[in-house]
Amino acid sequence: MSAARLRLGLLGCGTVGGGVVHLIDRERERIRERHGVELTIEKILVRDLAKPRPGVDRRLLTTRATDVLDASCDVIVETVGGVHCAGAYVRRAIANGRHVVTANKALLADCGRDLFAAAVRRGVTIGFEASVCGGIPVIRAIRDGLAADTIDCVRGILNGTSNYVLTRIEADRLSFDAALALAQERGFAEADPSLDIDGEDAAQKLRILAGLAFDEPVVSSSIAGIRGIRHEDVIRAREHGRVIRQVASAHRVTGGIELRVAPVQLTAHDPLAHIRDEFNGVVIQSRAAGEITLIGRGAGAGPTAAAVVSDVIMMRSDKMNGID
Amino acid sequence: MSAARLRLGLLGCGTVGGGVVHLIDRERERIRERHGVELTIEKILVRDLAKPRPGVDRRLLTTRATDVLDASCDVIVETVGGVHCAGAYVRRAIANGRHVVTANKALLADCGRDLFAAAVRRGVTIGFEASVCGGIPVIRAIRDGLAADTIDCVRGILNGTSNYVLTRIEADRLSFDAALALAQERGFAEADPSLDIDGEDAAQKLRILAGLAFDEPVVSSSIAGIRGIRHEDVIRAREHGRVIRQVASAHRVTGGIELRVAPVQLTAHDPLAHIRDEFNGVVIQSRAAGEITLIGRGAGAGPTAAAVVSDVIMMRSDKMNGID
Repeated sequence: MSAARLRLGLLGCGTVGGGVVHLIDRERERIRERHGVELTIEKILVRDLAKPRPGVDRRLLTTRATDVLDASCDVIVETVGGVHCAGAYVRRAIANGRHVVTANKALLADCGRDLFAAAVRRGVTIGFEASVCGGIPVIRAIRDGLAADTIDCVRGILNGTSNYVLTRIEADRLSFDAALALAQERGFAEADPSLDIDGEDAAQKLRILAGLAFDEPVVSSSIAGIRGIRHEDVIRAREHGRVIRQVASAHRVTGGIELRVAPVQLTAHDPLAHIRDEFNGVVIQSRAAGEITLIGRGAGAGPTAAAVVSDVIMMRSDKMNGID
Repeated sequence: MSAARLRLGLLGCGTVGGGVVHLIDRERERIRERHGVELTIEKILVRDLAKPRPGVDRRLLTTRATDVLDASCDVIVETVGGVHCAGAYVRRAIANGRHVVTANKALLADCGRDLFAAAVRRGVTIGFEASVCGGIPVIRAIRDGLAADTIDCVRGILNGTSNYVLTRIEADRLSFDAALALAQERGFAEADPSLDIDGEDAAQKLRILAGLAFDEPVVSSSIAGIRGIRHEDVIRAREHGRVIRQVASAHRVTGGIELRVAPVQLTAHDPLAHIRDEFNGVVIQSRAAGEITLIGRGAGAGPTAAAVVSDVIMMRSDKMNGID
């Protein structure tokens, strides 16, 4: 099978960017055989040229974003994170006629609407499967798998850090502070875990999912984190056969959509009640298909890179499978 | 937004075909707005013109397959089931340059390889999300969502009838025969449930999933059904905190892939252990993304129609999102 070449420019080479480089390295041959796509990385934006990066070809590195954005690439993969720089890069990539793949939930929650509109005008696409729940193909499930159906509700455990903390309190009878320290020690929480613990990370992902699932505007939004949740409450819930989880939910109310992030008690029958540790899960309720649950790893280099590179491959496949 | 028209020819108007007609009727407006696709049904093949079909435009009905296959359609939706006639119809549709969407697992398990090859030669696509696990977007998850990753194992509860019977034995302490009679009464089992109970239905779906997930050939295959499973064994497993489920699994062995369908004991930690009644579930183990679980309704008019019509819509969207 003759393979079509797809040239990538990488913005960032940290956990996710490095994961993308390694995954492409490992899977290149299989992707060529199976999908007829030859992936090549043309340029990689980094902050520090001197930093050791095992397995990364140093000749590809640059500290100037324009070296990546203005190179002859088909797809720009944005993994720098944050909103300001990343937004400017993505806008320039789109203006240059490049497809974009991003794992940046904050960027999409902040100015996704503008970016998607700019992409449509320029005739390019933005892949963002990795921005919500890492390796779980939830974007595809909502946008493609349920394209024909009306969705009534989306609920999920969208933040692995909070879920890890809650399940450790529950299973190991730790205090909130001890569980959070354990999460940090094991790499499931940042040094500053505020965005995760206070619910903002889950809220950003929820906004992205709600934008995909519903056409109506958001009319109400509330965010409560799990900081300071009482150990006794978690244990008491467990003694009554229940679990406390940080649940993000979006559903229809009069006039539009209501978004809510909060710790809630779940019965054992709730599909989200069985999601433990750093795992994420989403339950989609739609009219014809009924209830669909997706569970998997929501973060980490491997799952996120798998979502990013799959998005890249599908950009090519889209062309090959389309109606003429 | 100006909508592109997509003309459908329907083969069959039973549970699934009728579900497709009703879903399109209900969702037409939303699909036009959201996806820019105007779905119209041009012709419907039925066996009996006189049968009452509420909500179906009688002027579209015909008893001659060629009226559908040779009409000016973009997509042929095959819901007649079986292998012989359905195969001939799908081959002719492909030869006529029509895209095909099918829910027919037996057909794909039997001659999928030939049909896909014919479709590639003719430059058309075959959508088959509905053929495995109805409303659960598992085909998309494996083919698109994990395009970049190497899959090591796919396990699932792929037959809702068997699962219903097993969970009723477990929860209601019924005998196998009584649980099967209940499944038939509630519409979760056919009058002749052999294909479901003896594991062949699950095996057909497993072959489709394995074909998507792996490039290697199947070197070993075994099928054991749940017929005559002993009530005492199910109850005893439950008393030990375990459940018996009919699990279909495909994984790598020396020289290729091993397929297996059999009733197995699962611990409470197994994601498949929580799947009850007529629900289906699939666990995909891949190298970068880790473990992904998908759960939902595997059959019925609504879920199957949602998968079929989503496939139809995506055929159009593919063109609009492709790389030029």
